Amino acid sequence: MADVPESVLTSLDAHWRAANYLAAGQIYLMANPLLSEPLKPEHVKPRLLGHWGTSPGLNLIYTHLNRVIADRGQDTLAIWGPGHGGPAVVANSWLEGTYSEIYPDVARDTAGMGRLFKQFSFPGGVPSHVAPETPGSIHEGGELGYSLSHAYGAALDNPDLVVACVIGDGEAETGPLAASWHSNKFLDPVHDGAVLPILHLNGYKIANPAVLARLGDEELDDLLRGYGYDPVHVSGDEPMAVHREMAAVLDSTLDRIQAIQRAAREGVATERPRWPVIVLRTPKGWTGPAEVDGLPVENTWRAHQVPLPEVRTNPAHLAQLEAWLRSYRPEELFDESGAPTEQVLQCIPAGTRRLGATPYANGGLLLRELPLPPLERHAVAVERPGGEQNEPTRVLGRYLEELMAATTERRDFRLVGPDETASNRLDAVYGASGKAWQAETLPVDEHLDRHGRVMEILSEHTCQGWLEGYLLTGRHGLFSCYEAFVHIVDSMVNQHIKWLRTTRTLDWRRPIASLNYLLTSHVWRQDHNGFSHQDPGFIDHVLNKAPEAVRVYLPPDANTLLSVAEHCLASRDYVNVIVAGKQPTFGWLTLDEARTHCARGAGVWTWAGTENGSREPDVVLACAGDVPTLETLAAAQLLREFLPELAVRVVNVVDLARLLPNDEHPHGMKAAEYDALFTADKPVIFAYHGYPWLIHRLAYRRNGHQHLHVRGYKEIGTTTTPFDMVLRNDLDRYRLVMDVIDRVPDLAVRSAGVRQAMEDVRMRHHSWIREHGVDMPEVTDWAWRG
Amino acid sequence: MADVPESVLTSLDAHWRAANYLAAGQIYLMANPLLSEPLKPEHVKPRLLGHWGTSPGLNLIYTHLNRVIADRGQDTLAIWGPGHGGPAVVANSWLEGTYSEIYPDVARDTAGMGRLFKQFSFPGGVPSHVAPETPGSIHEGGELGYSLSHAYGAALDNPDLVVACVIGDGEAETGPLAASWHSNKFLDPVHDGAVLPILHLNGYKIANPAVLARLGDEELDDLLRGYGYDPVHVSGDEPMAVHREMAAVLDSTLDRIQAIQRAAREGVATERPRWPVIVLRTPKGWTGPAEVDGLPVENTWRAHQVPLPEVRTNPAHLAQLEAWLRSYRPEELFDESGAPTEQVLQCIPAGTRRLGATPYANGGLLLRELPLPPLERHAVAVERPGGEQNEPTRVLGRYLEELMAATTERRDFRLVGPDETASNRLDAVYGASGKAWQAETLPVDEHLDRHGRVMEILSEHTCQGWLEGYLLTGRHGLFSCYEAFVHIVDSMVNQHIKWLRTTRTLDWRRPIASLNYLLTSHVWRQDHNGFSHQDPGFIDHVLNKAPEAVRVYLPPDANTLLSVAEHCLASRDYVNVIVAGKQPTFGWLTLDEARTHCARGAGVWTWAGTENGSREPDVVLACAGDVPTLETLAAAQLLREFLPELAVRVVNVVDLARLLPNDEHPHGMKAAEYDALFTADKPVIFAYHGYPWLIHRLAYRRNGHQHLHVRGYKEIGTTTTPFDMVLRNDLDRYRLVMDVIDRVPDLAVRSAGVRQAMEDVRMRHHSWIREHGVDMPEVTDWAWRG
Repeated sequence: MADVPESVLTSLDAHWRAANYLAAGQIYLMANPLLSEPLKPEHVKPRLLGHWGTSPGLNLIYTHLNRVIADRGQDTLAIWGPGHGGPAVVANSWLEGTYSEIYPDVARDTAGMGRLFKQFSFPGGVPSHVAPETPGSIHEGGELGYSLSHAYGAALDNPDLVVACVIGDGEAETGPLAASWHSNKFLDPVHDGAVLPILHLNGYKIANPAVLARLGDEELDDLLRGYGYDPVHVSGDEPMAVHREMAAVLDSTLDRIQAIQRAAREGVATERPRWPVIVLRTPKGWTGPAEVDGLPVENTWRAHQVPLPEVRTNPAHLAQLEAWLRSYRPEELFDESGAPTEQVLQCIPAGTRRLGATPYANGGLLLRELPLPPLERHAVAVERPGGEQNEPTRVLGRYLEELMAATTERRDFRLVGPDETASNRLDAVYGASGKAWQAETLPVDEHLDRHGRVMEILSEHTCQGWLEGYLLTGRHGLFSCYEAFVHIVDSMVNQHIKWLRTTRTLDWRRPIASLNYLLTSHVWRQDHNGFSHQDPGFIDHVLNKAPEAVRVYLPPDANTLLSVAEHCLASRDYVNVIVAGKQPTFGWLTLDEARTHCARGAGVWTWAGTENGSREPDVVLACAGDVPTLETLAAAQLLREFLPELAVRVVNVVDLARLLPNDEHPHGMKAAEYDALFTADKPVIFAYHGYPWLIHRLAYRRNGHQHLHVRGYKEIGTTTTPFDMVLRNDLDRYRLVMDVIDRVPDLAVRSAGVRQAMEDVRMRHHSWIREHGVDMPEVTDWAWRG
Repeated sequence: MADVPESVLTSLDAHWRAANYLAAGQIYLMANPLLSEPLKPEHVKPRLLGHWGTSPGLNLIYTHLNRVIADRGQDTLAIWGPGHGGPAVVANSWLEGTYSEIYPDVARDTAGMGRLFKQFSFPGGVPSHVAPETPGSIHEGGELGYSLSHAYGAALDNPDLVVACVIGDGEAETGPLAASWHSNKFLDPVHDGAVLPILHLNGYKIANPAVLARLGDEELDDLLRGYGYDPVHVSGDEPMAVHREMAAVLDSTLDRIQAIQRAAREGVATERPRWPVIVLRTPKGWTGPAEVDGLPVENTWRAHQVPLPEVRTNPAHLAQLEAWLRSYRPEELFDESGAPTEQVLQCIPAGTRRLGATPYANGGLLLRELPLPPLERHAVAVERPGGEQNEPTRVLGRYLEELMAATTERRDFRLVGPDETASNRLDAVYGASGKAWQAETLPVDEHLDRHGRVMEILSEHTCQGWLEGYLLTGRHGLFSCYEAFVHIVDSMVNQHIKWLRTTRTLDWRRPIASLNYLLTSHVWRQDHNGFSHQDPGFIDHVLNKAPEAVRVYLPPDANTLLSVAEHCLASRDYVNVIVAGKQPTFGWLTLDEARTHCARGAGVWTWAGTENGSREPDVVLACAGDVPTLETLAAAQLLREFLPELAVRVVNVVDLARLLPNDEHPHGMKAAEYDALFTADKPVIFAYHGYPWLIHRLAYRRNGHQHLHVRGYKEIGTTTTPFDMVLRNDLDRYRLVMDVIDRVPDLAVRSAGVRQAMEDVRMRHHSWIREHGVDMPEVTDWAWRG
């Protein structure tokens, strides 16, 4: 490629200066946007917020991406890892016009520029970071570490897309980012697009030098080559020289990407390619104040946020700000109306090629309905409740296989998981797609596939980041994970839910597919792996978040799992948490019954109870989760046998949010519904999958809450047998019977013998398990007799 | 160093075979431990659990570490990243004798070996992973990713220690592990010990090849050099050749470590050293069954857990197991009594040099009381409540500076944080210690110190891992973190609490210093950074865990923060979460009052209320957290003014667990105490720092729970002003007054005017904030008038 002409470089510099001016203006000004009069204190915001330090670098990259996108007609999505530099990205989308198209109040004129400035980090205005409100963004820059995995997720199955991913040297220190470099071993150059990482070394974080910036080029290149990339450097602090170098390097790296893709797509190359990475070294706070109050600011950590903090009260700061802003020569960059000049706009692409207008950043625009297979083909036969056992996730795996096959051509569904797909018994999917893998293979390997859509890497963070990037760009997916270890991504799901909550308030953001978790290998069946693998708290974590964006399902058997999965896969803008077992479990409901039950979210299992339809029950046995449901039914059977006069109702809850009041969650039951199900004043013995107090937290406003008694996981665990786990946590069938005896009025005295028998049998189990190392036959051979 | 003699290699091989035999025996056998008779199905456990795949590699490393420790008298701690290979580490500690010293029932004889085998992964026995129960361990191998940061934490300030850290190639894919390689930029070769990473490439995870194992040596070496290490390789599948190579490489790497330390300690070298790393390639499940049922097992993922699954029912499997076990020639390894032979034991070190007996792995043995400075020197003067403002964390910073100075010689206290120490206003500590930093420095840098004990890296995972390793080896520390982003380590703190809970049940484990979090830059004062930075849910997360090991404190001012911090720093075996602000806050209590209040954990602030001592109040205003306390006091002042006849009690809660019943948490109040504080039947308006439902979850069993009304963070946020945050979440003073009016019987009608006035003033605030971008003077200038 020929050198970029000087005239183009001059126009790029004008664009860059304009963006820098607009970024600084957003941080400081609430009036006099074009400096048409001398700057006065009252033009400056009373509270100065924002991050200047990273902004000039982001502006440089945006400016140069514009040129190559326009020149090449290259579909491009940008991910701004240092997204706290919100003013930069907003400035660029205003310059290119997308901002005003979405927010017409903020037009490309003087008044619009005034609004652009004032609204930034201002109450009722726009956030200080790149956020859902920012055109062209799929990535909030507040919590660091996820830019590169988001970029790879976006590139998957988008063969024509280049995802330019700016990684700050601060972010690069985080674990999730460090792991995600290896995503290149999973990117298919044939069916996927490309990721162009741009590692921006501006040298400093909030208060410290950045580690990668202090390695020296040789060690850093070793690292990036070790990550499988081919590093190319751009560095400097003289703008025109940097423009020249940056333009040339962007051209050469994009040429290289095209060459890689061509070779792979023409079948010439089958080796894992060495993709390029750009290492960009420019000063933090470049072009801002060099010194403030005698201390160096530009190219130090002091440029991180607001370099001149006392502009309203300190005339020297005010003068320095004015000089700084005028150094960009705004009069050359904006015409009298306040619009950017032709020179500024010369290299900007058109239409949806603009970074702020690309549909890839508003994935709902690209989203297609999934071709969900009929559940009927996969449902298990349930001739009577508890007749047969099957492995629910294995049943789901066959359904997912058909879904995977149905999306072979469309390539818009992926299954991700940390090396656990087979362990979680979803391996039927390999019948329709292998596992994405571009690294070396050996003859002994199975199901590895250069074009596979099952993604497995032993990093929950990378799995989560990939899937978020995939969904945010308009596709579908499921994350299967050991229940305990999904806590590893607690903070990532926080941020995703915050994103969803905000996009729901923005009309221009189209709904995207929900983020679906299948949590299996759960707390009750990690008896073999022990205490470290036993944790049901992700449900609690998620239920703290925005109720409009969060759903939790605990299907008790295979058919309910199918029904819930179908619902979740078709839903939009939620985080759906499905907790389901992989071990053999009784089928309780036919597919039709399962559909009805799941649609209601909670219901009476009349076949399991002993209440006479004409009166209220004496006690309600409620349950949520597969193991608690089993123990509850076993308890109901014991009650039939030992206390046949007792009217017992069995209620199963699939959709946990049903327990919340209807004014606290869209799925919440009204008071009358709740009372009809649980009664207003009868004892409720609730066997719950997770921490018992969660049920109280959901139901404390309910009538009869004082009669609600919950059993669940009390954080007691070790390596033992499955039944010992429920015994230790007082969730076992015998304990539930004892709870009934203790809580139903007047029952304790006349049932003292039954209670003692339950105590005794618990002790027998305890001894047997310790002697034999397995559960007693009366547990392993138990079946519902109805 | 001379080559290791063949006779020594032969004895190492004997030890290795013995360890392999014992590892396989633990997985399979419950009788006939020495195969003194032909193997029968009934000798085999009914349920086969455990991880064979990694065990031979761990055994190899343990065996060879023994030799160099004994030869060199080198204090060594081993961290077993692939700690699911529990049988290997247990086998080795039995061979060296430490196991039997701690657990005399499991003696080094045939009966003891029988118990060793049967107890493994057996109910009532020992867990399947390396666990707190395992001698010599500070690291549970269940959740992967933290071995290397633990190792670095253990090495800090232990100049005579080498920490050998085995990293599995599965674990190496995780984010936390990937980030922690860079810990070498923070390790001081003068005052710290050394970390010797041993990257064990056995090629496979549960079901997939490992990424690092499929890079090729050149790319892997680039990666490790890029991480700043000097890689040395050992690989093979022929035991004697591997022994020879491993012995030579261990000698040369330890020589290299000594040379680095000598050069640094003699002042010869001041450059960051390039520490060695060993890359060990051996087959997964090495020496186990090569094939099972016609499929390759050794050197594939199929060797991960139990290679022969059907030994009890399939005679071919049984025969194969017997052949496998006998292939180690147990008759050469154990004498008639079942004890290991002299040849097996030849290279084992003595006493506390044994890896299972090192006091570094039982840190409480080494722990010294911290020389905590008197609080009096740092307390702020409080002549009257609400008279002066100060920044609580800045006050704490001066206290920490004195503590840091007092530990200059001892070097057993560290402060860690993700680039936020100064932002969190603890920067006074730099007066006593700079920030650990071994990478390049520039003249503009401040407070970087090759020997510093303040640790800052932009990785919460690495901070947490370092601190855990430091505490587990008997030292003290504090982790300061933005409140929202501490969720990044949710899963790590889960595991640490599980560790603490278990060690509390083991007499031989001595108590260690608590893990102390200072969470600041909290939800209410992240108004400037916006929604992504607003999350108070870590408290909820931690309170789900073992109550005996968890404490949460919300000091409302500087003196209470000092008192709480002193208490936490002196405590043992807890995770203490302190949530405190860094912004200027009124002082409410003198130091003496603060001490009394914090010791009680919750109490009436009589000076703030208007109740007549002779009767019960009409309403209780309760608060927990600095911002809720401010709003509550402002509400109390409004009530004095507008509803002077109302008897108002103000209760402040510092220790959140006080709200729990006393049978659910050691700090829980008895019912009578609770009633005395909150009344049994009066309305309680509780202004809480975090998610309001947490208070209900804690207090649902309390008398008068139905009268408890909680305000807190409802997951509503953006970039705005501080007061707008409380307004949006209905935690503001005016809303609290309205809540009082709505909840005190008979007040609503007669106070309709006051209620309307409150509504009106809220609207005025709303408009003012949107117009001016700052809070109204009546908030910013507010002061307690009493």
